[in-house]
Amino acid sequence: MSAKITYDALTAYTTKVLEKLGYPKPQAEITAWVLVEADARGVPSHGVGRLPFYETNIKKNFVFPDAEPEIVHETPISLTVDGHNGIGGHISKFAMDRIIEKAKNSGAGFASVRNSSHFGMAALWAELASKEGFIGMSFTNTRICSIVTFGRERILGTNPICYSIPTTGKTPFTLDMATTTVAHGKVEVHERRNKPMPIGWCVDEQGNDTTDIHAFQKIYRESNMGGHLFLGGAGEELGGHKGYGLGLLVDLLCSGMSMGSWCRDTFSPVNGCGVTHFFGALNTNLFGNSNEIAAHVEGILQQVRDSEKAHGHDRIFIHGEKELEKRTESLAEGVDVDDDELQMLAGYGEKFGLEKLQ
Amino acid sequence: MSAKITYDALTAYTTKVLEKLGYPKPQAEITAWVLVEADARGVPSHGVGRLPFYETNIKKNFVFPDAEPEIVHETPISLTVDGHNGIGGHISKFAMDRIIEKAKNSGAGFASVRNSSHFGMAALWAELASKEGFIGMSFTNTRICSIVTFGRERILGTNPICYSIPTTGKTPFTLDMATTTVAHGKVEVHERRNKPMPIGWCVDEQGNDTTDIHAFQKIYRESNMGGHLFLGGAGEELGGHKGYGLGLLVDLLCSGMSMGSWCRDTFSPVNGCGVTHFFGALNTNLFGNSNEIAAHVEGILQQVRDSEKAHGHDRIFIHGEKELEKRTESLAEGVDVDDDELQMLAGYGEKFGLEKLQ
Repeated sequence: MSAKITYDALTAYTTKVLEKLGYPKPQAEITAWVLVEADARGVPSHGVGRLPFYETNIKKNFVFPDAEPEIVHETPISLTVDGHNGIGGHISKFAMDRIIEKAKNSGAGFASVRNSSHFGMAALWAELASKEGFIGMSFTNTRICSIVTFGRERILGTNPICYSIPTTGKTPFTLDMATTTVAHGKVEVHERRNKPMPIGWCVDEQGNDTTDIHAFQKIYRESNMGGHLFLGGAGEELGGHKGYGLGLLVDLLCSGMSMGSWCRDTFSPVNGCGVTHFFGALNTNLFGNSNEIAAHVEGILQQVRDSEKAHGHDRIFIHGEKELEKRTESLAEGVDVDDDELQMLAGYGEKFGLEKLQ
Repeated sequence: MSAKITYDALTAYTTKVLEKLGYPKPQAEITAWVLVEADARGVPSHGVGRLPFYETNIKKNFVFPDAEPEIVHETPISLTVDGHNGIGGHISKFAMDRIIEKAKNSGAGFASVRNSSHFGMAALWAELASKEGFIGMSFTNTRICSIVTFGRERILGTNPICYSIPTTGKTPFTLDMATTTVAHGKVEVHERRNKPMPIGWCVDEQGNDTTDIHAFQKIYRESNMGGHLFLGGAGEELGGHKGYGLGLLVDLLCSGMSMGSWCRDTFSPVNGCGVTHFFGALNTNLFGNSNEIAAHVEGILQQVRDSEKAHGHDRIFIHGEKELEKRTESLAEGVDVDDDELQMLAGYGEKFGLEKLQ
């Protein structure tokens, strides 16, 4: 069961909860935007349901809500930011705003960021650039959850890759993908439903393919062995080494360039949260006339949409379309929030004496 | 069966064959390097075995060996090149040399390239940048061979992604991956051996998963329906939509930014070969001290190598290691060339009156 809450009401309420959790107003506002945007786009794994996780991060001293990002290196087309384990959305907005300015003035802007925290959907940051007509890029490392090819120890994360490319159509091309086959939320759904996992999602503590959801979850909770596979699964036959390569690439760009913590060192008593990001904004006028390029991109996408469909299918999707169509629906009809989350939100309301969420 | 030929002898012979096929000396030399490097690295799919394909491209007027690349747009950190359907290696070297110079002077260089042709292993171009201490990027579209999620028509190619990142170790991190699960060469091996394909490699003319190697090859040769799947396979359960997104991203960067032909329009009587590329060189001093960054990257990679191995495995590979270790062996002991290829090379030798390859 779920209810529909207006975008604005959910944003205002989430902002208040975050302020009560100790977020200064700017940090609370940007984070509420990050969370509500995810729910509005039909990506609840990155939505307001994250609030308890954010609260825990503060309690564990992984994250300090009032920390301000500091520029530790800067050139006309780049910067490196130390987030001092502040709020991921606040730090990411700071970095993106600056590199978009650089892309306007100098054609390109890249930012490496260390000591940040969860930044929500990668797409939100890349789309800040594509809205300005630039190619946007957004990568982040995360907590450990995944296993490299021929490994059995969780040393990397979901490490998403995101590129957003401007078009002359209704939506940009926005590829926002975990480099693992699935995120852990999908495993949890199978656990609740007592459903075996497909081969290609996870390996057990020996690094062998497993479908046994309960045995897997036990190991996953009790040790650092066994975990998620990268796109392409275990071994090399279906290209698992490629997915692993993409996941590792993300960590090298994010933590390598920022001199920050790689996945295994994040969320540690020593380093704090320590999550790292890498952002880019590339002005398409580096290559010619931006309007002509955007129209050419849209022309390619339209031919992809119009190409022959597989048996039983009537639509070929372009990346980002589903999410932005859902967003339009959510703005008109309200954002879906499921009962568990409504209860969690109501709990915060009671605790903090907030007006009831309508 | 195969023989070992010295790197230099194979290069000299290949150069001569290419000159006899109509390549001017500079084009012949760079192409021989591209092909012999692939064989030396144990990637024969991109090696001297390609010579007949290159010859066919000239005969069909897809490629003009003496065409020179032309800069059609340029900024301090970018250029767009029209290759006029000349030689892929020649055009790629031209673009990479210029953007590496830009990365030295301005911190970054990006090139979009239209009307080019097969450029060999993507790694070769990205590594030109990482050898200088820069992050190298190299992408290309190709001939059509692949099927998008929920599609059944071949409209994209193998569309490889390559990033090469400098380290303080023996080899850079070089991820060079087709975004399809496998390249067509692997399907051909299964055909010769009458072996069914694994699920996740290809779909049939209706867009359904298939393991039937002979039925698939018949359709593949006779129509534009049925073909290779992207990393993650058909549908969304194992992330096939992500692999498709990566393949499409490559085409948007390569043909979108260069205003060139997307995969479906390559190798056409109207456009000629028309292959497009996208290259990047990013100076790591944009983010801090390049030496410290390279050492930090190597530190991460060493921890990945040292992490716990899966049952039955004793090594975790970093991308690019296998190929560069094989290259060292090939330089010392000779490059493996298989009998079919030796025969093909001998055939050119007889036709063109070349001294026998030893």
